[in-house]
Amino acid sequence: MKMEAKLIITSMLVSLVMNVGTPMIQAQDLKSWNNTETKSAIVDFVERVTTDGGAEFVRPEERIAVFDNDGTLWSEKPFYFQLAFAFDRIKELAPKNPQWQDKPILKAAIDGDLKTVLAGGEHALIEIVMATHAGITTTEFEDVVKRWINTAKHPTTGLRYQEMVFQPMLELMQYLRKHQFETWIVSGGGIEFMRPWSKRVYGVPPQQVVGSSIKVKYEVRDGIPSLIRLPELDFIDDKAGKPVGIHKFIGRRPIAAFGNSDGDLEMLQWTTSGDGARFGLIVHHTDNEREFAYDRDSSVGRLDKALTEAAENGWTVVDMKKDWSTVFKKK
Amino acid sequence: MKMEAKLIITSMLVSLVMNVGTPMIQAQDLKSWNNTETKSAIVDFVERVTTDGGAEFVRPEERIAVFDNDGTLWSEKPFYFQLAFAFDRIKELAPKNPQWQDKPILKAAIDGDLKTVLAGGEHALIEIVMATHAGITTTEFEDVVKRWINTAKHPTTGLRYQEMVFQPMLELMQYLRKHQFETWIVSGGGIEFMRPWSKRVYGVPPQQVVGSSIKVKYEVRDGIPSLIRLPELDFIDDKAGKPVGIHKFIGRRPIAAFGNSDGDLEMLQWTTSGDGARFGLIVHHTDNEREFAYDRDSSVGRLDKALTEAAENGWTVVDMKKDWSTVFKKK
Repeated sequence: MKMEAKLIITSMLVSLVMNVGTPMIQAQDLKSWNNTETKSAIVDFVERVTTDGGAEFVRPEERIAVFDNDGTLWSEKPFYFQLAFAFDRIKELAPKNPQWQDKPILKAAIDGDLKTVLAGGEHALIEIVMATHAGITTTEFEDVVKRWINTAKHPTTGLRYQEMVFQPMLELMQYLRKHQFETWIVSGGGIEFMRPWSKRVYGVPPQQVVGSSIKVKYEVRDGIPSLIRLPELDFIDDKAGKPVGIHKFIGRRPIAAFGNSDGDLEMLQWTTSGDGARFGLIVHHTDNEREFAYDRDSSVGRLDKALTEAAENGWTVVDMKKDWSTVFKKK
Repeated sequence: MKMEAKLIITSMLVSLVMNVGTPMIQAQDLKSWNNTETKSAIVDFVERVTTDGGAEFVRPEERIAVFDNDGTLWSEKPFYFQLAFAFDRIKELAPKNPQWQDKPILKAAIDGDLKTVLAGGEHALIEIVMATHAGITTTEFEDVVKRWINTAKHPTTGLRYQEMVFQPMLELMQYLRKHQFETWIVSGGGIEFMRPWSKRVYGVPPQQVVGSSIKVKYEVRDGIPSLIRLPELDFIDDKAGKPVGIHKFIGRRPIAAFGNSDGDLEMLQWTTSGDGARFGLIVHHTDNEREFAYDRDSSVGRLDKALTEAAENGWTVVDMKKDWSTVFKKK
């Protein structure tokens, strides 16, 4: 083989293996982010922790990034999408469960009386989840979720819920994965409500999803090993539960956390108080035209304490209106 | 560039990307496995599920393999190594906890009276774990485990515990990972007892370790976010708890499971009863010269029901004496 050809082969192999000469941020990265300080802060952090030999270099195996789901990766208005799922499901199951008519909260849910349900607070939501998410095997529940997510539509936008995923956040997760981050979802929502579609929609496999859960029991039914979902709470992955969930499932402290509400405050504190370079980011819903605008006074997705602490702790705050050129997922 | 050089470049790139022409089993794979039926069964399974276009092909993302730890990846005699850790720790902490002298089980542990401790059954073990594993932060506990695992030695072999890892099983995990399996540990032992060294010793990162756990609480102490370990059981990852733990942490059913005792029975049932190609394997401790020989009558690591079911379900049984040319990790 000629010398010239050998050199060409060598340089091709080297660039394949070493990624030599690739700029850290490329034209196709973070395309839906406007060129604001927010985008610069993200890129700056990623460059600092991935520059080999740099003072703040972090080994790939320690590059854990955690993302809240509701309000951070997709919308959460007029109420959490999982609640819409529960409402649809309770109507479907009601004919076979006449006893629910005697329970005020379940009856309200069947009748679509949102006001009564929301007035019942967390207790009411748990009652509805128990009625609609338990009593079947994990495999059956997965099928129910898949069917729903592929068909159900949002009441005001008319979009399918899975189309109300934020394009800039998808790009951000891809950008991080390209730089050898593991991207995890850490959500107050149900873990088994997200896992059936997290890979397809977010590129996040089920084993990188952390969420709230009900108990599950192993049973051999008619000779067939099954996992049965029980009407009993197992774990609430919200507020102070988020660092606990992170520790339980991941076993190491993330170096970057992305949230949007006070439910993410403790996750942001825990992530950003570790040693070395850390990154905290809050999605602030400021765009009432393209999405929804809300913060300190909202009952769903309230952002109050965490917004105050963001300023104190140097967390990056996304101004959706200003920072994002596109909001929803591109088709 | 000449045609010849172009062809060479193309074929090099193709072989890099496609792994074309690489035999499925190579000379350096599974070196400590003798050429018996057991080795053939492993290789045959891996070839079937990784042959693209084959009837039993499994996509890489579904290639989950789960391994029990005690007795499967390392020894467990004369008693679980974590219990040795607890004994060492209780002696260390005893001077500062004079009240333990009034508790018969804790006093026995401090005095090294193994007989009394073991006679107390599971309840006694839990009491000792609560006393020795709780009350400190997760970070502090991690340091304690690391210090112990690097120094403590086994009472009869004189080896450090981390040297009593099975070489053939290390090779098996490497062989599976080379074929794009994710290798998970699913152990009855404490999750936080394994995570600090699982990557270094087994090549398994902390986020792929499932185990028993105590509860943890998030707290900001003197302005510092901390996770405090509480003296309260959270989850027992043993027997019927193993499929539950697998579902909770991984969220999909493994296609291969490796165990050694009745504590792994349900994990093997759950794994091998799924659709498509499945593999179940039991390590049978038959070698009293190089390790320890025990099965149906052993109090630690009893293998009775699972050995009977292995024959019925077509699980592969490793005969350590016959199938392994080396037992412990090579230095």
